[in-house]
Amino acid sequence: MNAKKIPDIIIGRLPVYLRALQRMAEMGLKTTSSQELGEHVGISAAQIRKDISQFGEFGKQGTGYSIEYLVNKLSEILKVNRIWDVVVVGAGDIGHAVANYQGFTDRGFRVAGIFDNDKAKVGKSIGKFVVEDTETMAERIRAADIKIAMLTVPAAVAQEVADKLVQAGVRAILNYAPISLNVPNNVKVQYIDPSTHLQRMTYYL
Amino acid sequence: MNAKKIPDIIIGRLPVYLRALQRMAEMGLKTTSSQELGEHVGISAAQIRKDISQFGEFGKQGTGYSIEYLVNKLSEILKVNRIWDVVVVGAGDIGHAVANYQGFTDRGFRVAGIFDNDKAKVGKSIGKFVVEDTETMAERIRAADIKIAMLTVPAAVAQEVADKLVQAGVRAILNYAPISLNVPNNVKVQYIDPSTHLQRMTYYL
Repeated sequence: MNAKKIPDIIIGRLPVYLRALQRMAEMGLKTTSSQELGEHVGISAAQIRKDISQFGEFGKQGTGYSIEYLVNKLSEILKVNRIWDVVVVGAGDIGHAVANYQGFTDRGFRVAGIFDNDKAKVGKSIGKFVVEDTETMAERIRAADIKIAMLTVPAAVAQEVADKLVQAGVRAILNYAPISLNVPNNVKVQYIDPSTHLQRMTYYL
Repeated sequence: MNAKKIPDIIIGRLPVYLRALQRMAEMGLKTTSSQELGEHVGISAAQIRKDISQFGEFGKQGTGYSIEYLVNKLSEILKVNRIWDVVVVGAGDIGHAVANYQGFTDRGFRVAGIFDNDKAKVGKSIGKFVVEDTETMAERIRAADIKIAMLTVPAAVAQEVADKLVQAGVRAILNYAPISLNVPNNVKVQYIDPSTHLQRMTYYL
């Protein structure tokens, strides 16, 4: 299925489609159209049809898409038809919020542990987790073959921690620290920085 | 300066350049090149030069960019050469983290208040804030002419709250709820949904 290279911009839209389709399924809907899906996600029906057709023929002319079938297909394409263990590094406010967040499990993820280098935080409880020492992090990541990390440390130490994560085998980092990370080509980084998102909107105000 | 329409994809990269340049300035650097900036942000030097040249000629061949000048210019373009008041709606874990976040002020934003419809939360302190009742939200937004909101409510009520915000005059919403919002054309929405970001990376694992 991945024989041809799909542009990353298309890959970036698939989770948005999947989220909307899962929500439709929860609401009891069985089928949808690219028009209807487009209205939910704010993307044109033509774009949606083009994006989805990259991966095969999933809809029938006139009858639209089976929501269940498309959820399964998109989950398979995005490899979230399984649960991925994720480590959280940094037990500050964002680390807390992320560790307690209920919205991961039904989207393919499970927090496997939260780490901090602050000895005052190590051993403390955050929801159902006990904060672990970052000194034991690499070993835990290797032992459990964990590929994904969420980085919620201060900007000043983010690159250093990212290097350790990559060395331990992590291949995908969701970075909450407000700094661009340098990682090898085989490692993916996504950024969550509210100020950056806000600045992207003030341009238009 | 905004006479010609700049593609949104370029606007989206400017805050990333600005963030890196501000960091360089903090480190005491005075000038940089598109090559050096490119290494920091993981974007090609050619792309950076092309993006920045949309707004005029900011660098000199051979001597590169003055960091201070470019920071000022990008701040002006993105309209963050001022402080924008922002309301936070939803006093849960994410609302807490956002209200306490120290990284807004030097990037152009200030949390002006945090609201919740849960009477058990109203009146409680979060850092320096006291949680206010959402019933008073529209009035506060109008009175202070607030244009920006961060939405940290559950998905089930996000659209309803967004409608109220728009009606009160909000024109930019940073939405943490895992749902696509329908808003008028003159309102901008940016999304922060960790599961969506994670799914965009698992495709490549």
